[in-house]
Amino acid sequence: MKPPLLFYFDFSSPYGWLAAQQIEALAAKHDRGVSWKPMLLGAVFKQTGTAPLTMIPLKGDYSRRDIARSARFHGLPEFTLPDPFPIATQAPARLVVWQRTENPERAAVLVKALYRAYFAEHQDISKADIVIAVAARESIDADAARAAIESSAIKDALRRDVDEAIARGVFGSPFVFVDGEAFWGLDRFEQIDRWLATGGF
Amino acid sequence: MKPPLLFYFDFSSPYGWLAAQQIEALAAKHDRGVSWKPMLLGAVFKQTGTAPLTMIPLKGDYSRRDIARSARFHGLPEFTLPDPFPIATQAPARLVVWQRTENPERAAVLVKALYRAYFAEHQDISKADIVIAVAARESIDADAARAAIESSAIKDALRRDVDEAIARGVFGSPFVFVDGEAFWGLDRFEQIDRWLATGGF
Repeated sequence: MKPPLLFYFDFSSPYGWLAAQQIEALAAKHDRGVSWKPMLLGAVFKQTGTAPLTMIPLKGDYSRRDIARSARFHGLPEFTLPDPFPIATQAPARLVVWQRTENPERAAVLVKALYRAYFAEHQDISKADIVIAVAARESIDADAARAAIESSAIKDALRRDVDEAIARGVFGSPFVFVDGEAFWGLDRFEQIDRWLATGGF
Repeated sequence: MKPPLLFYFDFSSPYGWLAAQQIEALAAKHDRGVSWKPMLLGAVFKQTGTAPLTMIPLKGDYSRRDIARSARFHGLPEFTLPDPFPIATQAPARLVVWQRTENPERAAVLVKALYRAYFAEHQDISKADIVIAVAARESIDADAARAAIESSAIKDALRRDVDEAIARGVFGSPFVFVDGEAFWGLDRFEQIDRWLATGGF
């Protein structure tokens, strides 16, 4: 099996959510898996000296409209932005970091369940209780999930992941690496498709 | 005839260059024309508090790679970024503002000729002499072109255009309006296509 695509995302990123629904099919088409890499855009924004998209003058107003339109374009006609938005995403990110080693297949299911809880059901997944309830629906023990979210080892592992993401040049969400080649944004999925088909262009 | 698409661009924008080669075919497919709107990203960046793409930490390195890869993806295998980059684009913008009223069809030809001079031939179109030489190839009188570039009326007209662009929410290049709906970037051309086909979605 060829190496998986590295899929970096923040749980507060609507484009990350849309991309999370398409990355596995794109990877599978080319005989690849997906490695799910939750990260924290807040830490990245400190590095790049920028701010959440929706808070930047001019760009903010456009992006609210573009997010909803892009959701409709990708088959989600009912989309509205959750409130609060954006949110802190340490809790869901830690859960995924934990499950990635415990049970990789369930980690993939969890990513989509947590994203859906936030963007489709408007549940505030910055809160550990909400994250644990979403995990319970996927048959994850609540006490074990809480322990993972509060574990220093998991916190450290996430911190290392975020540092590694920044070192690799990740500055937004979604951000995909294909054999070391970086692609930012759902709107680069066509280029990823051709890259995988041709071995680079 | 339905209203034209408003195509806002900066002559120093590589994505604007790629988009300028596709916008007319996209518009014509839906029975539309193109209104060419040169603007100055420098003035916009002051408003949004941001910087040229290639100068932002992390994003800068990525964007240099993405620009070249996107050029290859869109059929320009030989692309390399000009040096100097970015450049001031008042001179070519003024020439287009002038020709847009004098001779709209030639304005469209000029946009592509000036873009090609900079990005394919690596001529520094920030310089009036270069702009005038490019215009001469398109049968524009050199003295008239120089007078236009130095004319206070044309300078004022461009300034008004840029102010209007910012008032409309333009913050990047290319930036397209379809009957008031805003689309940023070449990677939104698929959405523009569907928007024009369906009357909005």
